[in-house]
Amino acid sequence: MDHNTNLLVVSAHAADFVWRAGGTIAKYVKHGANVSLVILSYGARGESNDLWNIEGQTLENVKAHRHGEVEAAAKCLGVENFEIWDYQDYHMEINSERMDRLVQKIREVRPHHIVSHGPRDAFNPDHEAVSKFVFDASVLSTSNGVRMEGTKTAKQASLFGFEPHQSEISDFKPEVIIDITETYEQKQAAMNCFKAQKHLIDYYGAKAALRGNHARRCSGNNTYQYAEAFSRSFPYVGGEFV
Amino acid sequence: MDHNTNLLVVSAHAADFVWRAGGTIAKYVKHGANVSLVILSYGARGESNDLWNIEGQTLENVKAHRHGEVEAAAKCLGVENFEIWDYQDYHMEINSERMDRLVQKIREVRPHHIVSHGPRDAFNPDHEAVSKFVFDASVLSTSNGVRMEGTKTAKQASLFGFEPHQSEISDFKPEVIIDITETYEQKQAAMNCFKAQKHLIDYYGAKAALRGNHARRCSGNNTYQYAEAFSRSFPYVGGEFV
Amino acid sequence: MDHNTNLLVVSAHAADFVWRAGGTIAKYVKHGANVSLVILSYGARGESNDLWNIEGQTLENVKAHRHGEVEAAAKCLGVENFEIWDYQDYHMEINSERMDRLVQKIREVRPHHIVSHGPRDAFNPDHEAVSKFVFDASVLSTSNGVRMEGTKTAKQASLFGFEPHQSEISDFKPEVIIDITETYEQKQAAMNCFKAQKHLIDYYGAKAALRGNHARRCSGNNTYQYAEAFSRSFPYVGGEFV
Amino acid sequence: MDHNTNLLVVSAHAADFVWRAGGTIAKYVKHGANVSLVILSYGARGESNDLWNIEGQTLENVKAHRHGEVEAAAKCLGVENFEIWDYQDYHMEINSERMDRLVQKIREVRPHHIVSHGPRDAFNPDHEAVSKFVFDASVLSTSNGVRMEGTKTAKQASLFGFEPHQSEISDFKPEVIIDITETYEQKQAAMNCFKAQKHLIDYYGAKAALRGNHARRCSGNNTYQYAEAFSRSFPYVGGEFV
Amino acid sequence: MDHNTNLLVVSAHAADFVWRAGGTIAKYVKHGANVSLVILSYGARGESNDLWNIEGQTLENVKAHRHGEVEAAAKCLGVENFEIWDYQDYHMEINSERMDRLVQKIREVRPHHIVSHGPRDAFNPDHEAVSKFVFDASVLSTSNGVRMEGTKTAKQASLFGFEPHQSEISDFKPEVIIDITETYEQKQAAMNCFKAQKHLIDYYGAKAALRGNHARRCSGNNTYQYAEAFSRSFPYVGGEFV
Amino acid sequence: MDHNTNLLVVSAHAADFVWRAGGTIAKYVKHGANVSLVILSYGARGESNDLWNIEGQTLENVKAHRHGEVEAAAKCLGVENFEIWDYQDYHMEINSERMDRLVQKIREVRPHHIVSHGPRDAFNPDHEAVSKFVFDASVLSTSNGVRMEGTKTAKQASLFGFEPHQSEISDFKPEVIIDITETYEQKQAAMNCFKAQKHLIDYYGAKAALRGNHARRCSGNNTYQYAEAFSRSFPYVGGEFV
Repeated sequence: MDHNTNLLVVSAHAADFVWRAGGTIAKYVKHGANVSLVILSYGARGESNDLWNIEGQTLENVKAHRHGEVEAAAKCLGVENFEIWDYQDYHMEINSERMDRLVQKIREVRPHHIVSHGPRDAFNPDHEAVSKFVFDASVLSTSNGVRMEGTKTAKQASLFGFEPHQSEISDFKPEVIIDITETYEQKQAAMNCFKAQKHLIDYYGAKAALRGNHARRCSGNNTYQYAEAFSRSFPYVGGEFV
Repeated sequence: MDHNTNLLVVSAHAADFVWRAGGTIAKYVKHGANVSLVILSYGARGESNDLWNIEGQTLENVKAHRHGEVEAAAKCLGVENFEIWDYQDYHMEINSERMDRLVQKIREVRPHHIVSHGPRDAFNPDHEAVSKFVFDASVLSTSNGVRMEGTKTAKQASLFGFEPHQSEISDFKPEVIIDITETYEQKQAAMNCFKAQKHLIDYYGAKAALRGNHARRCSGNNTYQYAEAFSRSFPYVGGEFV
Repeated sequence: MDHNTNLLVVSAHAADFVWRAGGTIAKYVKHGANVSLVILSYGARGESNDLWNIEGQTLENVKAHRHGEVEAAAKCLGVENFEIWDYQDYHMEINSERMDRLVQKIREVRPHHIVSHGPRDAFNPDHEAVSKFVFDASVLSTSNGVRMEGTKTAKQASLFGFEPHQSEISDFKPEVIIDITETYEQKQAAMNCFKAQKHLIDYYGAKAALRGNHARRCSGNNTYQYAEAFSRSFPYVGGEFV
Repeated sequence: MDHNTNLLVVSAHAADFVWRAGGTIAKYVKHGANVSLVILSYGARGESNDLWNIEGQTLENVKAHRHGEVEAAAKCLGVENFEIWDYQDYHMEINSERMDRLVQKIREVRPHHIVSHGPRDAFNPDHEAVSKFVFDASVLSTSNGVRMEGTKTAKQASLFGFEPHQSEISDFKPEVIIDITETYEQKQAAMNCFKAQKHLIDYYGAKAALRGNHARRCSGNNTYQYAEAFSRSFPYVGGEFV
Repeated sequence: MDHNTNLLVVSAHAADFVWRAGGTIAKYVKHGANVSLVILSYGARGESNDLWNIEGQTLENVKAHRHGEVEAAAKCLGVENFEIWDYQDYHMEINSERMDRLVQKIREVRPHHIVSHGPRDAFNPDHEAVSKFVFDASVLSTSNGVRMEGTKTAKQASLFGFEPHQSEISDFKPEVIIDITETYEQKQAAMNCFKAQKHLIDYYGAKAALRGNHARRCSGNNTYQYAEAFSRSFPYVGGEFV
Repeated sequence: MDHNTNLLVVSAHAADFVWRAGGTIAKYVKHGANVSLVILSYGARGESNDLWNIEGQTLENVKAHRHGEVEAAAKCLGVENFEIWDYQDYHMEINSERMDRLVQKIREVRPHHIVSHGPRDAFNPDHEAVSKFVFDASVLSTSNGVRMEGTKTAKQASLFGFEPHQSEISDFKPEVIIDITETYEQKQAAMNCFKAQKHLIDYYGAKAALRGNHARRCSGNNTYQYAEAFSRSFPYVGGEFV
């Protein structure tokens, strides 16, 4: 990865990109890649339980609060280029206007890799909807007949899926495990921006260590301490075994 | 891949390594990797139908004939380092002595990658037996308590599975597609060493072109003309998306 | 199959029926069956890349061009009875009016078999949408309470799914392999009506030969040279093993 | 189960709750649990074939007839608390208003267990739509940010899936088998309220006996004569093996 | 099916062929096919519980008793050509001598179809062992290099798998459903030869009726009253949709 | 669980029962259940890497060392009744004498539940062999015709599978999650008896916390802090939803 690498991350809710790919994102930024982050919603309805426990809470306040958290977390990871599309969550609904917007975004970013939610998440219907949304948009973005003012078709990006919260019952298989040892501290700092969700900070810290263990066992490389796991949508294609 | 790369190929019968991985093997040789090839049997009982149609045929003749074919094919691919263990095929049986022999071989070769049969082959029980044989030996080879005179434990190799003849009904998923455009002619030459099996030469030629089509579609890279597909036993582990 | 056999083919885009079932369709026509073909879209947005490379191209021109190709291909296969419903593709959206139209069509055709897209296509969201569309319409068509002027309920047709472009990663299993040796030339001629897509003509020619190889291996019948593979939605029901 | 147990049953059509869970429902009622039953549609279009065979039939008559059957069947099972939401079936469509209504219902009932259709039904698209509807509503009902006048968030209920008519081709796995020996007569009585569907009465009677056989074989407990099978959406969580 | 049709049935224990395929076997006999039945064991250890409840029971007595039952049942189905190989059951072990014997048998019978146990049976390890045994022997029987005095290679038979006792948890999919309405009385008579197993007689009677229901639903053909379901090992290959 | 509950644990290697079920075992002991533990091997070859790094190490020393660890760990969990059968590991081979021994053991213990390895373990062939061994023995133990001096047949136990080290690639699904909050300290103490394997102590500590998180999320019960996950071989059968 270097300054010629374009990475697009699409996060259904405000914090998904941190729990699920924070270390990997920080690593791409650190090594000079062009990282674009799209956050589809503030997660105000589905992932802000603690904020709603405050007497007199309003939707505007929740969004403002989450906006601050996202800004802080993005900073920890070094991501400068992020957008929040402010869709309603729980349920998130996809229509053709939204589809066009994401196709347009993909054609602008021209990503080599897109990282977003995988096809199944046993407890989160939004994640499943976004998975299909991103996949479909990636296909449309490559098609010459999907005409859009001022864009040209993109090459097919490779697609990687976040690890869902309960991996096995979501049929998640770790197909790609990325070593994040060198950026794990940044991930921790980014996670700490979501103070109200202490149980998740602990959870995804422990998870990164477990995936580090798997990384060592699968590769025999003992320098791997922390890792993040992803699924992939298409086969690896290349010049040699990796 | 370069002269620091060790590749071990384990082929159940005389010609499996050619049909299923010939282009990839030639590529590794061409780029200086250390390729070791173990052929477990001549395929005298299960994969020499045409030879047995000759009046008065004997097992010795069949083996001698197939030995010549293997030698010629290995030469086409540039493989100098091959062994034929001459096990009976159809059925191939694995016992602890054979297990020890393969563990020893792995510890000598110290392969980064092992390529052999994948776990399912809908029409070939030998291929399934060899798949388990290679997998188990690879695990034992890494264990310090499996003591063998004059060897030291190996690192866990990554394991890749050949594409079986009828992929879908063998539950094969192409997880790794290797571009073999630059060595496809060598593969063709090697396939032509098995003259009696013309239908297979046609078949695997067509297959390489189809996998080339898939390689282009998945990657957007139009230089890929011919390819070979493999399954993998463990997740990819590394520093970035591939 | 004979003149008492009703076959309905539903094709998402202009050329799907040719690549995926052209030989089978031609065979049914040749043996006197009543073949009805519904093409849901011209594939103007998703499957007409080459046409859009022409300066100043318009949607009308693309559709007109594709209409000519469809007419020519249908003629090669001997299909006289076809309709193009001209839905937008990429994405194709199904609503209740469209559902009613297809239910009506099924009740008119009264097909014994319906051939259309199978449930998964790893690179083509339209194919998946059409698969569900056809399945649901087939179920509704049999229900007495789905009232429609001038129709009466149909018997449950058996449903067969086209082979998708990348079979394994689309979870396709070839459950039914139809010998098309006697109509393969017609299929080739029909494929050649889509001149701009030379890579697909080569691809589906090679595929027909590969499926012919599988047909021989599974059956021991060596007269099979070319074949097309399909999935099926329901078990085979009948009086004896087939 | 006792008077502290809240059970919510969601039935796509008028009779689903009887065929698929009648014995279990009767048992919960008998042991004092609070059983709430929501029937989403009369099944007027998809599951009232016999009624539509009557000359001059109208939708109002069909619904009235089915209403009487539901009332009678609910009485046989002892269910007093039932609602028919009178959605159109075949296809049943879910929108956000309907989603809100079910979320509200769940928050009122506060069920420990929800029983409804499982994710796949090979012949019934409505059942699949309802499965997702109920699952999504159950998730939304637990989220503090899904604000609704006069409700408070529910705890996550455990979800159980009805056995579909053709279990294997619907990928149904019996994960939970409930002994209904003590209420089987009530189930029979309830089934007999749907006189026009004699083949289903026979079918689900035989099915209950088969599941009783499985219950005996899996447990070694020979008092089980009749049983109903269900899938489950989440793992069992508890203090000991069950 | 007619007098040119060769059917081979391989039954792990004494009664498996009756419960799982009795109606189909009787039908093939009735229509003149050549039916050969191989019963691998008396099921003395694993499927004769009731006999062992008799004080002073001996293995010889159990076998003699079961021999009588098999004879009677075969007669009911019209099968004249059967062999009992008297292997020990629970566990049944396969070695190369036994493999050779079955290969020889297949080459003599030259079956178009082989019916035996499918690959998974959640409660019966013998059935799984026999499934692999029959599959492997069928492959070896077609190979010219597997030399046996006085035999010539067979064509690849199509293989069908019995329905196991608990279908879903054995991953059984009914791929082929055979109408046995015309021979159902014979199946009942054959089942009644195993008097001690009343619960199985009831069970498989009910099962035949359920599969009849599925046969009607899948085909729309209402003459089907009783049926037996099978899995298949290879795709259907033929000239038209069935 | 109480003093009427019999639990049998079968562990392939010396420490498996601690990592995978230590908290659950301690809980059963604490609540008075009869826990029997069979350890099939010392894991001297496959799971004692550190010990073999000591100059001049011998097999006897390794076994003696591991015996001490097992004794200490069993004591921490409160298990008094354990046996080490001292089979060779890596590979563990099962023969009929060993099968008889386990059948006999099951008939003596008469377990309600058996806990052992599940069917798949992506990195450990021994675990897969033991899974089948235990399953088959459990089936044989219930069969009256499997005659053994001084035993009588057992009832079918329910079987639960340990979580393998890399759950997803071993196709593990957590079907049963047992809360071990009250005995987690005992599990930690038992893990600490295997000092040389610090990375596993950390790993399984983190795992228990993650499963605790899942337990809370699936149930809404926030008292669950630590948990262990298991698969199950048969459906749950009982009187009500759990």
